[in-house]
Amino acid sequence: MRILGIIDIGSNSMRLVIVQLTDDNSYRIIDDVKHSVRLGKDILPNGNLHPIRMQRAIETLQFYKTLCDAIQTDQIIVVATEAIRKAANQKEFPELVYSLTGLAVRVLEGEEEAYYDYFSVANAFAMSENLIMDIGGASTELIWMKDRKVRNMASLPFGTISISEQLNQAAGNIYEKEKTVTNALIHTFHQLGWLPHGKTLIGIGGSFRNIAKIDKKRCAYPLELSHNYYLPGERLQDIHQLIMTTPAGRRKDIRGLSSERADIIWGATTAINALLMYCGISDIYISGYGLREGIIYEEILHDLNPVEDVLDYSINNLMSNIDLNKKHAFHVWQLSRSLFEQLGSVHELNASTVNVLKTAALLHDSGISISYYDHHLHSFYIILNSQINGLSQQELLMAAYTAASHRKNKVKVDPAHKGLLREQEINTIRKLGVILRIAESLDRRMNDNISAVDCLIEQEVVTLKLTSNSTHELEAKETMEISAAFLKEFGRRLHII
Amino acid sequence: MRILGIIDIGSNSMRLVIVQLTDDNSYRIIDDVKHSVRLGKDILPNGNLHPIRMQRAIETLQFYKTLCDAIQTDQIIVVATEAIRKAANQKEFPELVYSLTGLAVRVLEGEEEAYYDYFSVANAFAMSENLIMDIGGASTELIWMKDRKVRNMASLPFGTISISEQLNQAAGNIYEKEKTVTNALIHTFHQLGWLPHGKTLIGIGGSFRNIAKIDKKRCAYPLELSHNYYLPGERLQDIHQLIMTTPAGRRKDIRGLSSERADIIWGATTAINALLMYCGISDIYISGYGLREGIIYEEILHDLNPVEDVLDYSINNLMSNIDLNKKHAFHVWQLSRSLFEQLGSVHELNASTVNVLKTAALLHDSGISISYYDHHLHSFYIILNSQINGLSQQELLMAAYTAASHRKNKVKVDPAHKGLLREQEINTIRKLGVILRIAESLDRRMNDNISAVDCLIEQEVVTLKLTSNSTHELEAKETMEISAAFLKEFGRRLHII
Repeated sequence: MRILGIIDIGSNSMRLVIVQLTDDNSYRIIDDVKHSVRLGKDILPNGNLHPIRMQRAIETLQFYKTLCDAIQTDQIIVVATEAIRKAANQKEFPELVYSLTGLAVRVLEGEEEAYYDYFSVANAFAMSENLIMDIGGASTELIWMKDRKVRNMASLPFGTISISEQLNQAAGNIYEKEKTVTNALIHTFHQLGWLPHGKTLIGIGGSFRNIAKIDKKRCAYPLELSHNYYLPGERLQDIHQLIMTTPAGRRKDIRGLSSERADIIWGATTAINALLMYCGISDIYISGYGLREGIIYEEILHDLNPVEDVLDYSINNLMSNIDLNKKHAFHVWQLSRSLFEQLGSVHELNASTVNVLKTAALLHDSGISISYYDHHLHSFYIILNSQINGLSQQELLMAAYTAASHRKNKVKVDPAHKGLLREQEINTIRKLGVILRIAESLDRRMNDNISAVDCLIEQEVVTLKLTSNSTHELEAKETMEISAAFLKEFGRRLHII
Repeated sequence: MRILGIIDIGSNSMRLVIVQLTDDNSYRIIDDVKHSVRLGKDILPNGNLHPIRMQRAIETLQFYKTLCDAIQTDQIIVVATEAIRKAANQKEFPELVYSLTGLAVRVLEGEEEAYYDYFSVANAFAMSENLIMDIGGASTELIWMKDRKVRNMASLPFGTISISEQLNQAAGNIYEKEKTVTNALIHTFHQLGWLPHGKTLIGIGGSFRNIAKIDKKRCAYPLELSHNYYLPGERLQDIHQLIMTTPAGRRKDIRGLSSERADIIWGATTAINALLMYCGISDIYISGYGLREGIIYEEILHDLNPVEDVLDYSINNLMSNIDLNKKHAFHVWQLSRSLFEQLGSVHELNASTVNVLKTAALLHDSGISISYYDHHLHSFYIILNSQINGLSQQELLMAAYTAASHRKNKVKVDPAHKGLLREQEINTIRKLGVILRIAESLDRRMNDNISAVDCLIEQEVVTLKLTSNSTHELEAKETMEISAAFLKEFGRRLHII
């Protein structure tokens, strides 16, 4: 095991994340702190960083170093971005840091920053093509990912802080100010020459996360999850309008808006809105991952290629972090998948649903790590809250409910979740729950006794033919207890030979 | 690490629990199955166990053995109780079991069974004196625990099955039937000669747990927790009346009543009700622990004495089962306790509240085992659901809320919990939350830098004098961020030197 501290010195905030890397390529975040230092603010007329801001940054670094030392990290990686990149005294700051803290600051080129953004997205989203935007305090990275590779990327030398300053300085009323800045942004986008049209946008950075938080408050979103939050383009535009038309002094009343961002959020929404218009974007997903995670994945993968399957990787990561009978979990998943595939004409579910089933099957017993008693409910909680990537938040919720039903017939959906799960999704959960329960019963002895199951589908009956290493009366008997639920969900009697 | 299978052959049901024992005396349940075999039913006229019941019991044992083998247990302990004790062919059954499964059945004497009941209660409840009743299918154990030792105990040769049979066979209407059986029970209790008066009752066994479940449905209890559920005596009597006056065929409609117990639950409530009347009992706590846990504790403790502190033991057990920075947890608890004790005149909380604070302080970061992000909320979930003993369910909920507030000012109490937490408890949580946050800030660097804190209490100000191994500006600064919350809860300004 290796413990790594990663410090990211941004123009707006500084963050430290401490991560445990294990030998099987899994990892676990064990600390994460953030300070709003604003190193990129108050730049002196000669282009130097402001001494007081530098002083504050160094104090923060000293604090981060103490945390790392207390936790005995094996290595501390410090990266800095645009604020340092463009500072006239960009050499002086790292030297000062090194002499006072012993930490070596690596100043990232804009393209390197963009690359890490891409690498975190490629490892945390299942999509193969999209446009990525990381809007920081002093720079904005744009990456066009195609076939999970970088097709093109750029780092633009402006961010929330500088755009907000431009907005404040532009002439006219707020609409005129916004128009001036938007036109300039669109001009810059146009000059890149490669921005694709009509792609899904993935948004990185604190501003995007904060916008998601505002949106969640506005639509009373029932989940606490941040990563992979879906934000329709028009809702981003609504929030942009709201912020723009709320006088600066009253922005703190906007529910969800962080007080630390109240003065710069307008810069972010203006830039995002301009990109939406220029690139014809209607769908945005918020990333909880960014630069730092890109670095973590580089440390884990020692490779330029992202993990092959994002969902598999994050499920495996969780399985490594908790105590779980992996053999049983994988066997239940193998049987579940076989049943799902063979029963396609009976369950009539979309093929993509299999990922919900996979998550539920592999993690159905994860709750035992909290307590054996009511562990199906604890599995629900763990699936929902353990940073599983590669499923939409709706699918994740469905996987949690499916796992929760692995010991009982009934799925009782929390009324608060009804906004995310309509009748169709609840039906899907019920059907997947029955499949999972059959698979669980077939491996009731947790000894892989039933090595395969073949389904014979007839008008009124589904016959499961079991292949076992010894007798299978026990598994057959346990499975038959699900026959009533099977009949209810699939309209056919269950028969086992 | 050692894995142990414990099988309990009761008259009504058979259960297997599989438990991992680690070298530091902690344990974790990893499987638990139950089958309603009713070995004590249909006894032949010659007193022998019924061959079909024996057959079913052996099949169940074979299944349990497969489970144990699949999980690679190091040892399987099989105990049997009253059904075998009183069977005419009590030698034959263990011999048959051994020849067919290789499992050695240990037939417990009544007093041994009572002793294990006592030992599980002594290790899972913080009380030092009470009366314990374990009502099984064919026997009932009564133990008077005083100073956490057995003062007296007995095993009576009747249980829910036999009492229900007596009720059915007695003459007259239901009230007359109940009166006849109750009088006989009271006569038996009286003959023991040592039953204490006015003690708290701790109820062990599936019947007690099922009665608790019925009661929870009746009063819409918001927690899923079973162990340490408080049941006022009069509510037990209400449930007894409800069951008695509901015709057998309609008992399944009683919400919470297990269908497997519908025909014998009346025997249980009649016996408990008789004990309540005879011993003047008004308070009942339900135990989730019993015979099997008594055996587990014997295996762990290698000792006739229960653990010294039930709460400490179960917190330590949880801390061993999850990934946790123990050094930081213990230091935060040490600082929290010191603040709690010194600020007694300021917070005006009952001294017993310190156990709520202890639980919250030691486990405030437990949620990191689920995910670092929102870990205060995950700590809430873990504290509530991880079988922590030695706190009432209300106190446990308070500890969970206190831990949840270790990173934020506000405690937002779920409306569903308002029945258990009134204004007074919510105020307590707020105050403890502020103390915990101060302690957390004082160990912000997680390096024990602040070794002690002394409180100087004045009319309008509380001054914290920090003793540190180096400078303490950082901790002081972090702590001062709590000063507004401190002022709000304690009516005094916070000052740090």
